[in-house]
Amino acid sequence: MTTQIPAWLSSPIKPLDKASKQAALERQANLTKPAGSLGELEKIAVKFAEMQATTTPQINNIHIAVFAADHGIAKAGVSAYPQSVTAEMVRNFAHGGAAISVLAKQLDAHLSVINLGTVTEIEPLDGVEDKRVAAGTANFLEQPAMTMEQCIHALTVGQETVDNALKQGCDLFIAGEMGIGNTSSATAIASVLLKRPVTELVGPGTGLNDEGISHKAGLLIKAIERHQLQLTSPIDILRHLGGFEIAALTGAYIHCAQHGLPVVIDGYISTAAALLAEKMLNNCSDWFVFSHQSAEPGHRLMMHAFKQTPLLDFGMRLGEASGAASLVPMIKLSLALHNEMATFADAAVSGKIE
Amino acid sequence: MTTQIPAWLSSPIKPLDKASKQAALERQANLTKPAGSLGELEKIAVKFAEMQATTTPQINNIHIAVFAADHGIAKAGVSAYPQSVTAEMVRNFAHGGAAISVLAKQLDAHLSVINLGTVTEIEPLDGVEDKRVAAGTANFLEQPAMTMEQCIHALTVGQETVDNALKQGCDLFIAGEMGIGNTSSATAIASVLLKRPVTELVGPGTGLNDEGISHKAGLLIKAIERHQLQLTSPIDILRHLGGFEIAALTGAYIHCAQHGLPVVIDGYISTAAALLAEKMLNNCSDWFVFSHQSAEPGHRLMMHAFKQTPLLDFGMRLGEASGAASLVPMIKLSLALHNEMATFADAAVSGKIE
Repeated sequence: MTTQIPAWLSSPIKPLDKASKQAALERQANLTKPAGSLGELEKIAVKFAEMQATTTPQINNIHIAVFAADHGIAKAGVSAYPQSVTAEMVRNFAHGGAAISVLAKQLDAHLSVINLGTVTEIEPLDGVEDKRVAAGTANFLEQPAMTMEQCIHALTVGQETVDNALKQGCDLFIAGEMGIGNTSSATAIASVLLKRPVTELVGPGTGLNDEGISHKAGLLIKAIERHQLQLTSPIDILRHLGGFEIAALTGAYIHCAQHGLPVVIDGYISTAAALLAEKMLNNCSDWFVFSHQSAEPGHRLMMHAFKQTPLLDFGMRLGEASGAASLVPMIKLSLALHNEMATFADAAVSGKIE
Repeated sequence: MTTQIPAWLSSPIKPLDKASKQAALERQANLTKPAGSLGELEKIAVKFAEMQATTTPQINNIHIAVFAADHGIAKAGVSAYPQSVTAEMVRNFAHGGAAISVLAKQLDAHLSVINLGTVTEIEPLDGVEDKRVAAGTANFLEQPAMTMEQCIHALTVGQETVDNALKQGCDLFIAGEMGIGNTSSATAIASVLLKRPVTELVGPGTGLNDEGISHKAGLLIKAIERHQLQLTSPIDILRHLGGFEIAALTGAYIHCAQHGLPVVIDGYISTAAALLAEKMLNNCSDWFVFSHQSAEPGHRLMMHAFKQTPLLDFGMRLGEASGAASLVPMIKLSLALHNEMATFADAAVSGKIE
């Protein structure tokens, strides 16, 4: 029996508004500063103008979703931390002690944590949604990480998370992840999607040494070889090599683009999901704002595939949406400058000498 | 008659607190994240810990000072904008329409604009302090930009501005500048201080074309040659080639370091002043946080001299303290993460596999 791929996955993306982009560019040219002198802060505002179809873009309602799940491959010793940390960190998110908890509070953002399947069961917790697919994925060294049903289930959790955010008036969506072993999964996915050898992408994750990185690379090469014949479409790549949280990210990104909800992409794992989303639905990335250059080496190759340079380069490699959240204040400053600065005419400031 | 250099200029800087730095590093190592995974956000917090001599650094009272003045060399056609813009922008700062006005409001920062000498007289304006030294500097193509008295006057305006901020409980100081022609002045200063040819530093400023940049470079080379024999100390370099606003920035930076007030350095002009401050008072830069890589080409050479990489690289080249202000939200996030995240022990999260 073939599992049906749900129709929503192929709904078209919302087009960007070119007229608003043009109007925003014209406004920028008339603000009291040399043309282009605010650099990326100008570009961010113009990008939000074309996404929000207005010359005065605003952000008032930020939702941050952290998708958590465990990975079968963690058993093979690909992480510097034990697998129990995934569930322990879910508790830490809920109790306000994790980086993303602090950032969400600072940004006055709504934080939701979605458990798609930790190996350790987690007691009901305020702020944690139980959307368990299974107690972690299967070890993709031995078999596909997910069945097609599980993969679609996890993609749909991402879609539903975006729908819930939209119902609450969200105008900026951010997603992140937690899952011990998930840089392995992201590396395998990116290697196949970009057709680049694992050795060009693989890195320390949460803190492997050189020996650990070699071991991880060797396992990923074997895993990709094992599934090679089945890796014929993005969803097949996702289901064989992915994780539940990566599938949820992918579904969320696709749904943001379909609904025209601007989404800030985090680091290494999230960008692998963004790449899957783009391969599954063309031009999805029109709605993506790339936040930061991850310290994980393969991230540059993925950014290169998107022909984008992320705005921040802070050497971050935490995940949890922490890099994406860190960009939010910059976006807010950019929009305030765009909306509130005086024009040369308003302020009676002389223009450039012709 | 030799003008006396005031005693405050050579008062020692406040030393950083190494014990607080060590305690902050230890705290960072125990927070629930892989060690180092917050990258620069960790380093900012540790830097503020050693500056504020506490393991829980905080910022609650931000002062932004914009020093404005005109430059005699503007008459030689070194800017893409007419000289009247300096005074027009001072009015724009006061009326809330300039980039720094919008940023100060967003950051809930106190903004003061200090007029050290525009060519055009400015009517009394709320939020603008009249500290005129003269109606702009002399044209340093023909004579020293300032007399020693004027130079000391302007340096002292910077000192007094910091003193006023301290009286109001300021815990983070930011300074910026406005002055048509001041990239010429900054380029000449940096060229002499760094012993690098003008052609390696000179750039478009507010928007010169290639021909304009060549013209500017030629003039600056001649000006430096003219004064060469007098350029024997930092204060002499400042008085021959500087501007009143650059002197005020220099005085402010020195006084921040003397009082142990953390100061965020803006872009090209501000970094030239920071370089003067460091040359006038050794280790002054212990108290400097470099905010952004200016798009003005010579900025990289100055940063190289400080052995520092600024945190943001947004292609900004506006001045007015706009780049420094843009870093403030990052500093606040960094301190919140440092102070509010749970430790592994607090949150019962397992540590790294040994």
